[in-house]
Amino acid sequence: MTRIVLDADTGIDDTLALCYLLASPEAELLGIVGTYGNVTARESVRNNRAVLRLFGHEHVPVMLGCEAPSWADAFQVDEGCARFHGSNGLGNVNPAKYNRANASKTLDTTASSLLDDGTIAATSSVSDTAHAEQSVFRRQLTVSIGGERASVESTPTLASEAAMVDTSRHGEGVQFIIDIVRQYGCDVTILATGPLTDVDAAISLAPDIVPNLRVVIMGGSLTQEGNCYDLICETNIFQDPEAANHVFRSGTDVTMIGLDVTHQCLLTRADVQSWRDTATARGAFLADMTGFYINANEASDPIFLAGSPLHDPLAAAVALDASLVNCFDINMMTETATGNGHGFRGRTIGDPTKLRDPHKTTHVALHVDAQRFTTQLRERICALCTD
Amino acid sequence: MTRIVLDADTGIDDTLALCYLLASPEAELLGIVGTYGNVTARESVRNNRAVLRLFGHEHVPVMLGCEAPSWADAFQVDEGCARFHGSNGLGNVNPAKYNRANASKTLDTTASSLLDDGTIAATSSVSDTAHAEQSVFRRQLTVSIGGERASVESTPTLASEAAMVDTSRHGEGVQFIIDIVRQYGCDVTILATGPLTDVDAAISLAPDIVPNLRVVIMGGSLTQEGNCYDLICETNIFQDPEAANHVFRSGTDVTMIGLDVTHQCLLTRADVQSWRDTATARGAFLADMTGFYINANEASDPIFLAGSPLHDPLAAAVALDASLVNCFDINMMTETATGNGHGFRGRTIGDPTKLRDPHKTTHVALHVDAQRFTTQLRERICALCTD
Repeated sequence: MTRIVLDADTGIDDTLALCYLLASPEAELLGIVGTYGNVTARESVRNNRAVLRLFGHEHVPVMLGCEAPSWADAFQVDEGCARFHGSNGLGNVNPAKYNRANASKTLDTTASSLLDDGTIAATSSVSDTAHAEQSVFRRQLTVSIGGERASVESTPTLASEAAMVDTSRHGEGVQFIIDIVRQYGCDVTILATGPLTDVDAAISLAPDIVPNLRVVIMGGSLTQEGNCYDLICETNIFQDPEAANHVFRSGTDVTMIGLDVTHQCLLTRADVQSWRDTATARGAFLADMTGFYINANEASDPIFLAGSPLHDPLAAAVALDASLVNCFDINMMTETATGNGHGFRGRTIGDPTKLRDPHKTTHVALHVDAQRFTTQLRERICALCTD
Repeated sequence: MTRIVLDADTGIDDTLALCYLLASPEAELLGIVGTYGNVTARESVRNNRAVLRLFGHEHVPVMLGCEAPSWADAFQVDEGCARFHGSNGLGNVNPAKYNRANASKTLDTTASSLLDDGTIAATSSVSDTAHAEQSVFRRQLTVSIGGERASVESTPTLASEAAMVDTSRHGEGVQFIIDIVRQYGCDVTILATGPLTDVDAAISLAPDIVPNLRVVIMGGSLTQEGNCYDLICETNIFQDPEAANHVFRSGTDVTMIGLDVTHQCLLTRADVQSWRDTATARGAFLADMTGFYINANEASDPIFLAGSPLHDPLAAAVALDASLVNCFDINMMTETATGNGHGFRGRTIGDPTKLRDPHKTTHVALHVDAQRFTTQLRERICALCTD
């Protein structure tokens, strides 16, 4: 059994990663931290809960992680993310609708009202704090719009958002990561499929966990072009380059599942059809959601006419079975500024100051058994739908 | 025996690469093509001839290669190159001076006058052509200043330079590469330690050589920062990104010795002292020249306080003994424009259109046995000095 904490900005492919974990008998999912990125952190929490409910795993705790990058006061989803993940992160598909359907035998039809009212019970205490501290945030706020810096005048709404961010930075999601690593050491894997803000916050608050921390990330790109507009950066890392740089350089053991390998593992319409063919509500939900993702990828780049990249599911699979990839061991960094003498903000690259250090802390996957992984993903998720 | 054609912008480390070849019994050096980069192509020809003379190998033919990048009419050395290589490419050291010294038994002291008058016999016919065609070039010229684009009004001097460029593009150096590959196929290695303009010109003029062409290049960087001011590009590739991209994507078998490995192989003051300790004119020349290089590297970046990178000599050593490195096989490209949707002009990166193609044509060295290589370099060059 592999103990996993999933830290995700859920997200279509994050949802598939979560499903892969739920479908894998060797995974023990201890908890999920919802962070910002493809969606806001609160939407991520909501999406994770909805997916857990649809697949009959409500018992897994879901906690709120950081709501904004380490360098910003607040966060807004950018247009590009919405194009790939839909405005709700799940391809504009509502899991609650499938909960009410009859096609699956294991669905809990009473749970849907909880979803529909949009509240997040576990984080309501945060809002109380926000009201108390509102006046503090009547100032110029730095807002991240999908990683791009914007400056806005604070408003009561934004001030309350910022207060929530401030609280959540030392909030339950980050504390959960710290506690679980202190409890299990390297016998738990932190699987981070979004920005690295939570992991960074955890090691900043609790440097004692670094020697035992084992992180598998979906993020970065070393030998292939990035997937931001600049073609240099990868989206997750671009959201919070400072956090990523801190994690890479901390000495933490990081397995990096970047575009080098995720662009080799493609989800096809045939895979999606196999889930629909289970004739279950779960299968219909996954097929509808991933259909949106495939359409978006095909529209974005001709290289994805062959299929859509399985970023986060591959990271989940590698967290459970490292033999799916071969890694290049290197000490990595993330550049945090752009221009002469700085490189390019958000680029993941080798750390020149540690090039000749024989001790390498990052393992960058460069080869992947794509056939074995994609077959496994399709079949395990088929089984999960009919379970 | 390994047949080698060296294509070099000679350059201090190019000179060390040449010396390594001369010192290696398994190398059969068939010829040298002098190209632009660290110096002008004509200075490269002159430097190669002077070094061959000092080391008693005047019989090796030296030919003029391209004098400017494929995208420019003319070329000027930039300030940065002069800082690392001296204004003459040899650390402001004149090999002819050492020819006149008594310390080596094999020196030909009558040859120095040939060097001192600055003429290059083999290329004098080019100048005749230039005079005839001068009027054609009275126009706006695109000049590469170390890879940066500048536009200047043509002058008689520049026009004649441009005419020479135009002639040399189909000149003797490029034709030599074509002829030798047609003769020996993959039983000759083209070792390119400067920009890839000559190799690009050869495969453009003679596409039939591509299937048999084996190129070892010093150039590019895949997993480490670049060494241009932008920290993204490597100097040789930056000079002519179009040429490099064409070579990478042509299907040619390329072994890429980039900063990934050359920054691990460092020349120390102790190495230089061992050459001086041979008490030969040759040893004194190499020690004086490389002393300049070490000073420049130490002044440029604290990471080089441990030693100066042995870029071109490592490429030469790998051309003779591939077991010095472990390579990552990948289909590479060079980005030729900067900005959203383009990447960064001069960056070497995986070709996304060929990521899933099982046939990989570029072998990027990522691991190197630095200890074995640097020891071998020091010892072989000591032996060459006293030979």
